[in-house]
Amino acid sequence: MITIKFPDGREVQHPANITGMQIATGISQRLGKEAIGILVNGEVWDLARPITKDAEINLLTWEDAEGKKMFWHSSAHLMAEALEALYPGMKFGIGPPIAAGFYYDVDAGENHITPDDLTRIEEKMLELARKDNAYIRTEISKADALKYFTEKNDEYKLDLLKDLEDGQITFYEQGNFTDLCRGPHLPSTGYIKAIKLLSIAGAYWRGDESKKQLTRIYGITYPKQKEMEEYLAMLEEAKKRDHRKIGKDLEIFTFDDQVGSGLPLWMPNGAAMIEELESLAKRTERMAGYQRVRTPHLAKESLYITSGHLPYYADSMFPPMEIDDTKYYLKSMNCPHHHKIFDAVPRSYKELPLRLAEYGTVYRYEKSGELFGLMRVRSLQMNDAHIYCTRAQFEDEFKAVNEMYLKYFNIFGIDKYVMRFSTHNPAKLGKKYVDMPELWAETEDMVRKVLINSSIPYIEVEDEAAFYGPKIDVQVWSAIGREFTLATNQVDFAQPISFNLSFRNENNEPEKPIIIHRAPLGTHERFIGFLIEHYAGDFPLWLAPMQVAVLCVNDKVLAFAEKICKSLNISEIRTSLDTRNEKIGRKIRDAELKKIPYMLIIGEKESGDGMVSLRKHKTGDIGRFTIEELTGKLIDEIKQGTNQ
Amino acid sequence: MITIKFPDGREVQHPANITGMQIATGISQRLGKEAIGILVNGEVWDLARPITKDAEINLLTWEDAEGKKMFWHSSAHLMAEALEALYPGMKFGIGPPIAAGFYYDVDAGENHITPDDLTRIEEKMLELARKDNAYIRTEISKADALKYFTEKNDEYKLDLLKDLEDGQITFYEQGNFTDLCRGPHLPSTGYIKAIKLLSIAGAYWRGDESKKQLTRIYGITYPKQKEMEEYLAMLEEAKKRDHRKIGKDLEIFTFDDQVGSGLPLWMPNGAAMIEELESLAKRTERMAGYQRVRTPHLAKESLYITSGHLPYYADSMFPPMEIDDTKYYLKSMNCPHHHKIFDAVPRSYKELPLRLAEYGTVYRYEKSGELFGLMRVRSLQMNDAHIYCTRAQFEDEFKAVNEMYLKYFNIFGIDKYVMRFSTHNPAKLGKKYVDMPELWAETEDMVRKVLINSSIPYIEVEDEAAFYGPKIDVQVWSAIGREFTLATNQVDFAQPISFNLSFRNENNEPEKPIIIHRAPLGTHERFIGFLIEHYAGDFPLWLAPMQVAVLCVNDKVLAFAEKICKSLNISEIRTSLDTRNEKIGRKIRDAELKKIPYMLIIGEKESGDGMVSLRKHKTGDIGRFTIEELTGKLIDEIKQGTNQ
Repeated sequence: MITIKFPDGREVQHPANITGMQIATGISQRLGKEAIGILVNGEVWDLARPITKDAEINLLTWEDAEGKKMFWHSSAHLMAEALEALYPGMKFGIGPPIAAGFYYDVDAGENHITPDDLTRIEEKMLELARKDNAYIRTEISKADALKYFTEKNDEYKLDLLKDLEDGQITFYEQGNFTDLCRGPHLPSTGYIKAIKLLSIAGAYWRGDESKKQLTRIYGITYPKQKEMEEYLAMLEEAKKRDHRKIGKDLEIFTFDDQVGSGLPLWMPNGAAMIEELESLAKRTERMAGYQRVRTPHLAKESLYITSGHLPYYADSMFPPMEIDDTKYYLKSMNCPHHHKIFDAVPRSYKELPLRLAEYGTVYRYEKSGELFGLMRVRSLQMNDAHIYCTRAQFEDEFKAVNEMYLKYFNIFGIDKYVMRFSTHNPAKLGKKYVDMPELWAETEDMVRKVLINSSIPYIEVEDEAAFYGPKIDVQVWSAIGREFTLATNQVDFAQPISFNLSFRNENNEPEKPIIIHRAPLGTHERFIGFLIEHYAGDFPLWLAPMQVAVLCVNDKVLAFAEKICKSLNISEIRTSLDTRNEKIGRKIRDAELKKIPYMLIIGEKESGDGMVSLRKHKTGDIGRFTIEELTGKLIDEIKQGTNQ
Repeated sequence: MITIKFPDGREVQHPANITGMQIATGISQRLGKEAIGILVNGEVWDLARPITKDAEINLLTWEDAEGKKMFWHSSAHLMAEALEALYPGMKFGIGPPIAAGFYYDVDAGENHITPDDLTRIEEKMLELARKDNAYIRTEISKADALKYFTEKNDEYKLDLLKDLEDGQITFYEQGNFTDLCRGPHLPSTGYIKAIKLLSIAGAYWRGDESKKQLTRIYGITYPKQKEMEEYLAMLEEAKKRDHRKIGKDLEIFTFDDQVGSGLPLWMPNGAAMIEELESLAKRTERMAGYQRVRTPHLAKESLYITSGHLPYYADSMFPPMEIDDTKYYLKSMNCPHHHKIFDAVPRSYKELPLRLAEYGTVYRYEKSGELFGLMRVRSLQMNDAHIYCTRAQFEDEFKAVNEMYLKYFNIFGIDKYVMRFSTHNPAKLGKKYVDMPELWAETEDMVRKVLINSSIPYIEVEDEAAFYGPKIDVQVWSAIGREFTLATNQVDFAQPISFNLSFRNENNEPEKPIIIHRAPLGTHERFIGFLIEHYAGDFPLWLAPMQVAVLCVNDKVLAFAEKICKSLNISEIRTSLDTRNEKIGRKIRDAELKKIPYMLIIGEKESGDGMVSLRKHKTGDIGRFTIEELTGKLIDEIKQGTNQ
């Protein structure tokens, strides 16, 4: 008999060699159907694999991230089986699961696979799935494995085998397809009910441009057709909302070859959004007791040696400039500059918490192949701040930071979010993590307490903290359900030591502050990229680059229209006048295309009685107003938009 | 007879060899006394030098810049005479006039001259001045000149003689002192009535560290005692108002060795001022129809080759960073980035004038020896904008820019200012200046017309334009009468060509815009440096980093004081609370030292009736107010401060 320990701490005796599947069906028939894998002592296993010793277990379903990974990994094998059936002699590279779905890199040989072939492959996959063949794990010697793929003439699998050690090699087989694979996998192909192959791309073998280019086929599968349809609809919607497309159409940002890759130029519409976001952040931070600072975009090498950015973060930094025999680096983070401001004058506990905020632009080197629209850039305007506080103040400060996040989520209508709380690993103290066990325990406890007390959804991940303290990655979902990582909060008890920062405490002794690094609105680049998708470019009034379009029916009413424009602009409402010699219908259509929230239609009637006809984007006519009424209405909506 | 042409065009016949002095006394006795030099065909001459041919002349007095230069140059000779009298055997380097006063570099040999000696030297100078010795010009052969200084054993003058050509060498002699000098000089030493020697410094011969260090003695002289006393009082006041001292005392900015020279870190008080200035600029520019943009701080080498910054401006740029085999440079100006935004979409004449504004931070390399507080820095946050307009729009746009200057001068109480209008030189077209004579004539005429029509004081200087168009340097005087160059406006018809910028005109043909580069508030660095001196740190309420200090008489009234603080902060009035355990007198003194415009004294009486006692910086008690009255009063003063 062996002892199986469940996640809730319950321990149950079972005969040795019991499988995950037997445990699941033993609990309930439903779980027997839903379980697709099992976590055994922290390792994901096939449900069919016998458990030989005492173990802590956790059954995995499709709902678990690890479950999805297994599901898509097995789907890659299923696609390979279908490909081999359709294209005999095909050779296979690697076929892993990815964030959403899977791919397989294949050498199609004479066959040229095109998007037109995808349906046929999907159909074959469905046919094979319906056979419900089991995924069978076999441990195999290296000699036998080499023999198998030599006979099969698959040079890629042979290349992979080179790096593997005898005694640790497994094959997985389902139906007529056998793959070199560590697993784990679904019990059988029948779990896969919905299949969509998405696209085809080229990919060099082992990512090496000097090697052969293989064909990469991307796909996604689901246990239910409905779920897949929702995903595909989301994907379709995401394509329409692509921030690169909308960003260009609405003249929000542009890139220029002579300026450089990953360095967006913000056009007037983008700059207007940036100004609004900064204004929101500055107001919010002022009310929360932050003080603003301004720091230059570069510093001497010596600063980054003190901070540890050199050498630990060197790969993400721009190369140095040499001035007066000294190396200067563009800043990749604002913290070292802020620490210098903290340190510029003697500090007393009475000044703490000291909260230094700056919308600082930092520069980070990303490989050109990894740059992507506003999502992966080299210049980042960051909603940054550093809070210097005592240990006693930490909890309140950290709570206030989280509440600021919630306030912003509310303003931007972000309903789904999660904080990914990364803690240290006590076994790695002094290696991966600063060796201060008490401070780790204390700050992690405090962070956990704040998260629980604030009812903020969070997941805790061990062994992923920063080297200087626990961190929180903030993940949000856009209106169409795509996930974005927006910002990172970090607790830091190491930099006060390396920068030798201190304040005089109540006993007039020097004491080290704790630092909270925080950036709730992330960077303008990523956040505006997110907002474009989130709102599909239909920004709320306060954030819309152009808020009102004044459209004249003819030239006779131009003077009245100009008067209205001026009056609205004085009230700080961004208003444009369409003076083109076009029909009113065309002017309305164009304003709709520009997604301007409100249109004022000015005809001779309006010019006569001083009223304006108001039209709302995507809604149509909503009545006639005096300029005063209109101004009041718009200002109200703008204020409500940011919860003022 | 020769013809003498006066500045007003009048021509007068005079016998040949007439001197400037004869011309001056011939006009009036007063002018005979006031004239100190004469401009002959654009060259400054001694009044005693005979004019042999027809000439255009202009008599110079102390009031002319060239007059002051002569006066101080002659004063340097007078000081040398005094030094030689007091310290026989002294050797002389160079002794030029400077912006205010003069210096002489001397080798004092065995004698060590200290500040204590300056009075004795001044007295000697006054004694020699009273002798009213004439400055006598002699043309001398190189051989005789070498002989003279070899006998005198003055190696420095011999070193200078090496580089001079025979036939072009002159001596000047007054009293017992003879100097190698090109002149020109005052008629005699008696013109110098007031003398002050200011300081002593070390200076390497010919600025070369490998050569001998000489003693540099600085001095200033005036034709009237009263004028000198005013200057010395201004100097004394400027010392008290030194922006480096006040900037440190008020915690406005700081420098850090690890960040780098010339890279100010703006502390919360400085950042608050920056935010106010930017807010003023953004509001002003929005009302004037500007659109904001945001651009990165670097670009590829290729952009700066197109713009001509490389190689023409390379010495002022930071060295490149090499990324992906491409050189990137920090921007030293914002214009190329803005041109790229202009060029990002097709432009129509209907969009013009297009005014793109950005508070862009640029980086310029200055030698470390030339860095000076906020006045000479390497990072500059510039109130920049570029106006793209048609030739027809140019005049109105340029006028509007000038009016914006005047608006700002009014806000900051700048009463004395002048625009230095630099034009091209037709003889240098195609060499120093773009070869577009019509556009030069047209834009210079338009600029001149605007300056005249706006009644803006200006001086016109030929042959100092930028290579791409006429420019205006804006010079202002601080409250204590020191001169600052704050900003440059430039007209540009060359960059539209190099960047191939165009818009579709009314005939749907491509046409090149004219660009106005403008920055009325200059850079935050220089402007705040100026404002610190201008206001001596006593900033107007709207600009003051901390606007109100709440001072409690004792701890019992703390809750009431905190309530007031919060209420004022909600009204966006920057308010701090002094919670120290100090007597109220001490708290008031400290708030006065911090130059906080208003203090609220909170005692038990105030806490009881909800009123506050208001105290004004440098003024004292000004009465009791309710919080509402106080808030209203302060908001009014803030709004009036920026003319809203």
